[in-house]
Amino acid sequence: MTDSRPALGVGMVGYAFMGRVHSQAWRSVASVFDLPVRPVMAALSGRSPDRTAEAAAMLGWAAVETDWKRLLERDDVQIVDICTPGDSHAEIAIAALAAGKHVLCEKPLANTVAEAEAMAAAAREAAARGVRSMVAFNYRRVPAIALARRFVEEGRLGEIRHVRAQYLQDWIVDPQFPLVWRLQKDKAGSGALGDIGAHIIDTAQFIVGRSLTGVSALTETFIKERPLAEESAGLAAEGGSEMGEVTVDDAALFIGRFEGGALGSFEATRFATGRKNALRIEVNGSAGSLAFDFEAMNELWFYQADEGDAGFRRILVTEPDHPYAGAWWPPGHGLGYEHTFVHETKDFLEAIADGTDPTPSFEDGLRVQRVLAAVEESAAAGSGWISV
Amino acid sequence: MTDSRPALGVGMVGYAFMGRVHSQAWRSVASVFDLPVRPVMAALSGRSPDRTAEAAAMLGWAAVETDWKRLLERDDVQIVDICTPGDSHAEIAIAALAAGKHVLCEKPLANTVAEAEAMAAAAREAAARGVRSMVAFNYRRVPAIALARRFVEEGRLGEIRHVRAQYLQDWIVDPQFPLVWRLQKDKAGSGALGDIGAHIIDTAQFIVGRSLTGVSALTETFIKERPLAEESAGLAAEGGSEMGEVTVDDAALFIGRFEGGALGSFEATRFATGRKNALRIEVNGSAGSLAFDFEAMNELWFYQADEGDAGFRRILVTEPDHPYAGAWWPPGHGLGYEHTFVHETKDFLEAIADGTDPTPSFEDGLRVQRVLAAVEESAAAGSGWISV
Amino acid sequence: MTDSRPALGVGMVGYAFMGRVHSQAWRSVASVFDLPVRPVMAALSGRSPDRTAEAAAMLGWAAVETDWKRLLERDDVQIVDICTPGDSHAEIAIAALAAGKHVLCEKPLANTVAEAEAMAAAAREAAARGVRSMVAFNYRRVPAIALARRFVEEGRLGEIRHVRAQYLQDWIVDPQFPLVWRLQKDKAGSGALGDIGAHIIDTAQFIVGRSLTGVSALTETFIKERPLAEESAGLAAEGGSEMGEVTVDDAALFIGRFEGGALGSFEATRFATGRKNALRIEVNGSAGSLAFDFEAMNELWFYQADEGDAGFRRILVTEPDHPYAGAWWPPGHGLGYEHTFVHETKDFLEAIADGTDPTPSFEDGLRVQRVLAAVEESAAAGSGWISV
Amino acid sequence: MTDSRPALGVGMVGYAFMGRVHSQAWRSVASVFDLPVRPVMAALSGRSPDRTAEAAAMLGWAAVETDWKRLLERDDVQIVDICTPGDSHAEIAIAALAAGKHVLCEKPLANTVAEAEAMAAAAREAAARGVRSMVAFNYRRVPAIALARRFVEEGRLGEIRHVRAQYLQDWIVDPQFPLVWRLQKDKAGSGALGDIGAHIIDTAQFIVGRSLTGVSALTETFIKERPLAEESAGLAAEGGSEMGEVTVDDAALFIGRFEGGALGSFEATRFATGRKNALRIEVNGSAGSLAFDFEAMNELWFYQADEGDAGFRRILVTEPDHPYAGAWWPPGHGLGYEHTFVHETKDFLEAIADGTDPTPSFEDGLRVQRVLAAVEESAAAGSGWISV
Repeated sequence: MTDSRPALGVGMVGYAFMGRVHSQAWRSVASVFDLPVRPVMAALSGRSPDRTAEAAAMLGWAAVETDWKRLLERDDVQIVDICTPGDSHAEIAIAALAAGKHVLCEKPLANTVAEAEAMAAAAREAAARGVRSMVAFNYRRVPAIALARRFVEEGRLGEIRHVRAQYLQDWIVDPQFPLVWRLQKDKAGSGALGDIGAHIIDTAQFIVGRSLTGVSALTETFIKERPLAEESAGLAAEGGSEMGEVTVDDAALFIGRFEGGALGSFEATRFATGRKNALRIEVNGSAGSLAFDFEAMNELWFYQADEGDAGFRRILVTEPDHPYAGAWWPPGHGLGYEHTFVHETKDFLEAIADGTDPTPSFEDGLRVQRVLAAVEESAAAGSGWISV
Repeated sequence: MTDSRPALGVGMVGYAFMGRVHSQAWRSVASVFDLPVRPVMAALSGRSPDRTAEAAAMLGWAAVETDWKRLLERDDVQIVDICTPGDSHAEIAIAALAAGKHVLCEKPLANTVAEAEAMAAAAREAAARGVRSMVAFNYRRVPAIALARRFVEEGRLGEIRHVRAQYLQDWIVDPQFPLVWRLQKDKAGSGALGDIGAHIIDTAQFIVGRSLTGVSALTETFIKERPLAEESAGLAAEGGSEMGEVTVDDAALFIGRFEGGALGSFEATRFATGRKNALRIEVNGSAGSLAFDFEAMNELWFYQADEGDAGFRRILVTEPDHPYAGAWWPPGHGLGYEHTFVHETKDFLEAIADGTDPTPSFEDGLRVQRVLAAVEESAAAGSGWISV
Repeated sequence: MTDSRPALGVGMVGYAFMGRVHSQAWRSVASVFDLPVRPVMAALSGRSPDRTAEAAAMLGWAAVETDWKRLLERDDVQIVDICTPGDSHAEIAIAALAAGKHVLCEKPLANTVAEAEAMAAAAREAAARGVRSMVAFNYRRVPAIALARRFVEEGRLGEIRHVRAQYLQDWIVDPQFPLVWRLQKDKAGSGALGDIGAHIIDTAQFIVGRSLTGVSALTETFIKERPLAEESAGLAAEGGSEMGEVTVDDAALFIGRFEGGALGSFEATRFATGRKNALRIEVNGSAGSLAFDFEAMNELWFYQADEGDAGFRRILVTEPDHPYAGAWWPPGHGLGYEHTFVHETKDFLEAIADGTDPTPSFEDGLRVQRVLAAVEESAAAGSGWISV
Repeated sequence: MTDSRPALGVGMVGYAFMGRVHSQAWRSVASVFDLPVRPVMAALSGRSPDRTAEAAAMLGWAAVETDWKRLLERDDVQIVDICTPGDSHAEIAIAALAAGKHVLCEKPLANTVAEAEAMAAAAREAAARGVRSMVAFNYRRVPAIALARRFVEEGRLGEIRHVRAQYLQDWIVDPQFPLVWRLQKDKAGSGALGDIGAHIIDTAQFIVGRSLTGVSALTETFIKERPLAEESAGLAAEGGSEMGEVTVDDAALFIGRFEGGALGSFEATRFATGRKNALRIEVNGSAGSLAFDFEAMNELWFYQADEGDAGFRRILVTEPDHPYAGAWWPPGHGLGYEHTFVHETKDFLEAIADGTDPTPSFEDGLRVQRVLAAVEESAAAGSGWISV
């Protein structure tokens, strides 16, 4: 049956991990949520004609382009979805906004503060023309994280004292794991810091509704050289015998202060053996506390100090009145990783339809970029305090 | 881009909870798994023309029928997917198989042993003609459950001693919850027993690879009367002021024995306040043990007795070598409820393409039905032992 | 410094596992709790003079007897503490009560209903003379269990629907584990059923405040023969080459009904590989639920249905207003197994000082004994229903 | 019966929280462990004659002194156990060692590095005379922590990359909680840092067997003024209406590096609402990882990377071959907070009997003190890096 909702064509750049999961989101969102518009998967852009065509067929894109600039010329594309490494974000996003396309851009927003500033400026200018932009900090759309934000906003935690955030992975513990693009500064900007540290910085600032004002940091590269990858396009590429220098951090730790006086402790690492995707965050306030671990993403732990016989309660965030959850399945029928992207596209599409600016904005992305830069500066300066 | 894989048209009957989640599966499966065929969502059947058309538009079905029999006449339908209440399964499935359509049928297979026997006979006869059938015990396709089965098959648990299975929900604890179809014996066959008890019986038999040989049971209906629902189509229908009799069980408990000597303890209830969808199963063997809870569906707990400093280990079932997991996201990026259906359709489509019989077969469904009947018989006979 | 509180002399029979932990309790109780009396560890009785003397020196008993009857003649003994296998409980307890000694008796109260009835009668008669008796179901004195009872008593769970109780151990999974006294019917009465099943029956009845009215049961002995132990005094005795018959159950499962209509599911086994001392109990009521596992004994999980964003909350039962906890350490500084015995002796001593009857009484012990007998009778009769 | 083991008289200074728990340890240790000596609770010292006598009677001390110096003159005292606030440690310990008494001293060793250096020097000099000393970092004697140390020592974690340690409490979140001695710099030296931060520093260094080489830190006092306590002797004192300045930190966070290259992240706070005594530590190595939380003190979580289907395994540290556990109860019968002190006195008494130096030594205490000083220095210097 024809879906009578107005169509918005999407052109996506890149079809690796992020491209695959974004495709899944574009494909599902209008069947799950009662949206005012429906996305059409118009065209996929990639450099290799064969591989792009193969990906497009598999993932359900109607057409293929081998130059992302061609997406900007297509009339059937109203949204450009950027799923490439960070070094290309600024160029693509700025051009797309200039061409009047709404832009959804993967995180981190850029590889440098300067790029991010240019992007934020372009976004502001585009917004004045009704062209929308959003940075894809998908973890804001975990129902449990959105519920955490709601609790803080409602004052149920009281005055925030502590934020404890970690993003722990272990996929490069093996020294033979090859030098993929994520381990190269020119492509990725930084290592654990920009890839996963960016997520916990944004998530923490989102939940507490306050920004970091300064940091003191350490970074480390445990494995200095790795086998060159045949190609560096994926997480799972095989290593060869020639070695290359790892030019990004393996781990980044910092302590900091938030507006309003809360203290923060942050750690991003790819060397936490046994932790696969442990984005963990704890918030302690004068009246209550929260704890979350993405490895059990359907659960939010909540402590309310003034209730008798208090204890951290495990809220299964699958109730109809929980963020996003009502559109899915009955209580207790949990969601998975990809659904955070479905929620992201839902909010993005609704903002476009409503004529409002979605969040996180490029400005929010810039704010994270500034923290990343401060962390690198502090680490380079013997952990001295750097204001954000 | 055109997907060059041969198409298999699907006609689905019903579009409530199960229809929605099956749609999600048909829509995703060929974009995630590298299948030899691709499903096409050809037609949706429902009694109300308007509501069926609305559902079809939302869920992505190309056409609509108001009589399921019309699906059997369509050349673009090779698969019939039955998502209706149990009282209609036998008629639809037997007719579809006779018409040469492959059949995927929701569980429980039927409302009576007699119906299930007829269906199993029809399935055997159809299989001889190359027509496939499968009953939708989706929990077999939770990666953690499939891994549990693998461990038992590999002998890592040794001789099985105990199975402890519970399916705990709480959605009808409120006496004002209305008399929906799931609480009416003529439509649902039984209550907690057939709806969720069927799942733990099948899951237990699947994991240990043995059948129950006898049971001793109790059932109870805590709330004898409930408000009549305006209509009884959904879980969330509102109750009115007129009351009707609840004709199914609210809870069913039984103990039993498996082939090979293991003991089983089973409980299915909709009155376990606070448990939302807690399909829990524990298996103890002479060499190891397993524990699982669907409320944390990405985790399998495994104890291997002969390893030093043993302990139940929490396996995050998201590694590339875990069942189904490799096709999705990197380790630690968990899956959700709906993905069990994606896996189900994947296995079903592969079996059709390969010309093999998928499992669980209608025979497996009949086996579960016989246990359900034995439970009801024992409960009616003062908990006396009933052989299966 | 002299403790000015009036002394109550204790004479203990047996110094194996239970004797050791009771000694720890007698030694500590008056230093932790502000008691009206203080226990004096007057004499220890055991058959072997040397080994009893050695145990007494180690455990802090002032004198030694090689015949328990001598304890009854001692003026410095006001309390007899029975820590022997079940086959001797009735004789010792009845004689001690007749001699005017207060009696604390290990569980199960006896090996048969007849013995238990005689003991309960003796206890009633003694109580009329101001002589007190108590059966040592120590798990009632886990702070979390006592808090669970408080919640039910306060009505916070509403109407009780389900009790789910398991006591899971694995210490005899190895077929070479020897035939210790706990595996011999003449000494132990029964196997897992009387040893650990008795605990969950008492604990369940205590928490819900209702008795079981009938059961349907299964029992099994997985390993029929075991090496004869050199001696059968301890859990850890070494096996030899000669074999003997195991005359008790390895596992016992039953389903049942409580007064008031709640359903119960019970399982006691020594073959749950990986579970060391998992006394687990869950209670579901119309307004809330509880869950407990002794392997994490300082935690009580509590669900209150009517609170917004409900979830099972992990109460760390170490707050000053929690049962027993205030006398110990600050919040979060957990207790261990032995402290349940300290609490038991505290309550027993206070009852003696106050001139009231402590609980659990021998009558309570008899009530458990009747359930044990019903379970054995049902298991022998093909799981048929047996009223308690 | 007389205990024939040679006696060692103990004289204890202080009878508040630490004095109570040490008493419990002295009372129990020789009945649980097969020691070559037995401690005798000879004398308790406190300033108030009445209250000290009352405490001594309750806790089981034979005599009372109102001046700790008198303990040093007593022939029946061979061990001095210091349970007073940190400002008196140096004077008492140095005098006791000079008098030839073995010394067990509560942590932190002292309030300043200078005091700690003097104490370490006195300990070295005394050791040459066969007089032993030990600082009471009791958490080293949690069986799970000792097992963690064993795993690292055996190389099962490979090269250590990360240490993540937190000690989280919440007992002063309420601004009306009074200004007890632990909140006064002259008595306590520092706040959360010295009280609980000292524990995680020692525990971390103990487990990984390496020292911190430098730190970058933040400290904060959230509540600057509090009601003056009537007296400031206990945690639970009531506040009055007059206010006084809080002169210690409420929370201390730092990042640092260990010898060998591991990174550390530390946090000690009394403002983590809902965390009661959460001493948490995680260690990630190239081959495995560990995680521990004192709120579940009988569990050690261990991940071994090279085992198939790896996962964090929950080891119940109650097996006979686990540290300290064999002397207590059967597997699964957990221990509590106080038992860490029993283990501490056991090891101390054995070292005295064996003529060896116990650990942690005053030198170890000094090492912790130097980290505490570096943390304070860094915090005062804008989080700049301070070498230890």
